[in-house]
Amino acid sequence: MRPGLRPLLLAANAATQRWAPRTHVCLTPRVYASPTARQTTRGWTRLFSAVSGSLPSVEGLPDLFPYKEGQYNSASINAGKVRAQDTADFAAKLSATVAHLQREEKSAVWLKVPMDYAHYLPVAARAAGFRPHHALPDAVLMVRWLLDGVPDKVPPFATHHVGVAGCVLDARGRVLVVKERHPRALWKFPGGLAEAGEDLGAAAAREVEEETGVRSAFAGLLAFRQQHAMQFGNSDLYFICRMTRRTGEGEGDGEGEQELRPCAHEIAEARWMPLEEFAAQNTHPMMGVVAKMLMEGPQNHELKEETQESIFGSRPPYKMYYHASDAQAQ
Amino acid sequence: MRPGLRPLLLAANAATQRWAPRTHVCLTPRVYASPTARQTTRGWTRLFSAVSGSLPSVEGLPDLFPYKEGQYNSASINAGKVRAQDTADFAAKLSATVAHLQREEKSAVWLKVPMDYAHYLPVAARAAGFRPHHALPDAVLMVRWLLDGVPDKVPPFATHHVGVAGCVLDARGRVLVVKERHPRALWKFPGGLAEAGEDLGAAAAREVEEETGVRSAFAGLLAFRQQHAMQFGNSDLYFICRMTRRTGEGEGDGEGEQELRPCAHEIAEARWMPLEEFAAQNTHPMMGVVAKMLMEGPQNHELKEETQESIFGSRPPYKMYYHASDAQAQ
Repeated sequence: MRPGLRPLLLAANAATQRWAPRTHVCLTPRVYASPTARQTTRGWTRLFSAVSGSLPSVEGLPDLFPYKEGQYNSASINAGKVRAQDTADFAAKLSATVAHLQREEKSAVWLKVPMDYAHYLPVAARAAGFRPHHALPDAVLMVRWLLDGVPDKVPPFATHHVGVAGCVLDARGRVLVVKERHPRALWKFPGGLAEAGEDLGAAAAREVEEETGVRSAFAGLLAFRQQHAMQFGNSDLYFICRMTRRTGEGEGDGEGEQELRPCAHEIAEARWMPLEEFAAQNTHPMMGVVAKMLMEGPQNHELKEETQESIFGSRPPYKMYYHASDAQAQ
Repeated sequence: MRPGLRPLLLAANAATQRWAPRTHVCLTPRVYASPTARQTTRGWTRLFSAVSGSLPSVEGLPDLFPYKEGQYNSASINAGKVRAQDTADFAAKLSATVAHLQREEKSAVWLKVPMDYAHYLPVAARAAGFRPHHALPDAVLMVRWLLDGVPDKVPPFATHHVGVAGCVLDARGRVLVVKERHPRALWKFPGGLAEAGEDLGAAAAREVEEETGVRSAFAGLLAFRQQHAMQFGNSDLYFICRMTRRTGEGEGDGEGEQELRPCAHEIAEARWMPLEEFAAQNTHPMMGVVAKMLMEGPQNHELKEETQESIFGSRPPYKMYYHASDAQAQ
């Protein structure tokens, strides 16, 4: 904060108290993982879709920046759409706005800083206590928690990567495996990172086709693992999906090696490998478990995928995964 | 790029070609989700742990910034540790360094921009083609893909949030449920967001204890779901864990309502509810499936957690989840 700014802000605080009545603080900090609580809340996602507002200036006090109301009693400011003469003016107005929002008992305030206004980032951090939260393709989103004495409940950005592998068996019970283009590559199931918005089975089908040319569809989820401290320090979840081969008219019976079209960029070799050979040559414990499941009959072990309609009208359907006994499935 | 800079850079490119021999390009773009491929690679995580280097200046050409070698044939620069007279000088040196790295056939270059140097963010975007990738607590990490004609293989930052619920039964077969502090709250299992580095079962145990005071341990994974376009536009995975109650010496038998200590901040009420009542009052389809599993006997359906040692010596053990038949489990 600039020297001499604090008395000004204290005065501003006193003034802003008159601008709006106090609102009731209603914290719903842990609704994130609750399927039922979503009925009443929409999440931080809609922060920028609420109505906009602007506030009158008071002579001798810094103008306040316009802000939008967000979910969880938050507010949001777009640094690319405010008027400030220079960084000092930006700092004074941002600090005054933060003080106002604290008087309003808002829970948190978001600040979207487009790349062209990136010089405001350190100003917002130093003068008004904002911290970087996540990056957008052309902006940085900062946040400041406003409720003194209440722990910061702003949820972190995504914490997990999701990878999938597709395990396709042919008519002779052989499994489709690939070897990547690096010197110490081992035979493994085709697979890769799920893309944004992609279901597990759809991601596995896409990866299998990209890497081998084989078309397949999700049949069941065999196993998954969770690992921490991976890429960028995040955790990852890795799901192994059993896939059934899809053969269209004019395509072969799924037994011909000549039908495989390994991706030239990524895959050195693709082949159908007898399950026993795969189990014997693979030293990875997770692959050992999966090979055993496949040999015993995966239907007894795998999780089925079930599409559920969201109980909140505005949300798209989602996929639920669980092991159904034969009695349940019928 | 500043007018007049391009001829200079072309000259610099010619000069840098002599500074180091061409290196072999070895792309391993999809190793992310491959358990076996990790044997040979360590991931982007180690970008900043490699040895540092600096390059000699050539009279009349911009100095190059020092950079570190990273995995996947990448390089990284810390904008807080380079010498530049002003933003124009920063732009010229950064562009020259990018051109040099392209001559070196590096795959990508990372630029860490600490908050105090945030004015470099738009410069790096405009003059050298960098884009924001993710935010750190006090910095923004930008990236620029370098291989023209090869699709950008830089993996996205984490894409998923992970939530957990803990389903604890008492000795009389009643299930522990909570009602949150908002007007339309429904009875639900205690739960919340998994924290960084936390296993699913550990997260469920922590949430159950925080919200109700009941201590529990992971017993089995009953079901999960994947939903897209949630908080911050990310996807989420929500896991329902069956928990066994842990009672220490001097604690009750788990049947007394008086033992519940609902979290004052978040939870309005906690209670033990007969399973039939829970199944009857809950309209959420996922809860219906779980209630049915619990009544039928969850042991036939749930996934067990198994700790696996990583086959890569430097990695910590991870948790694997799958449905083991009785024969397999013994």
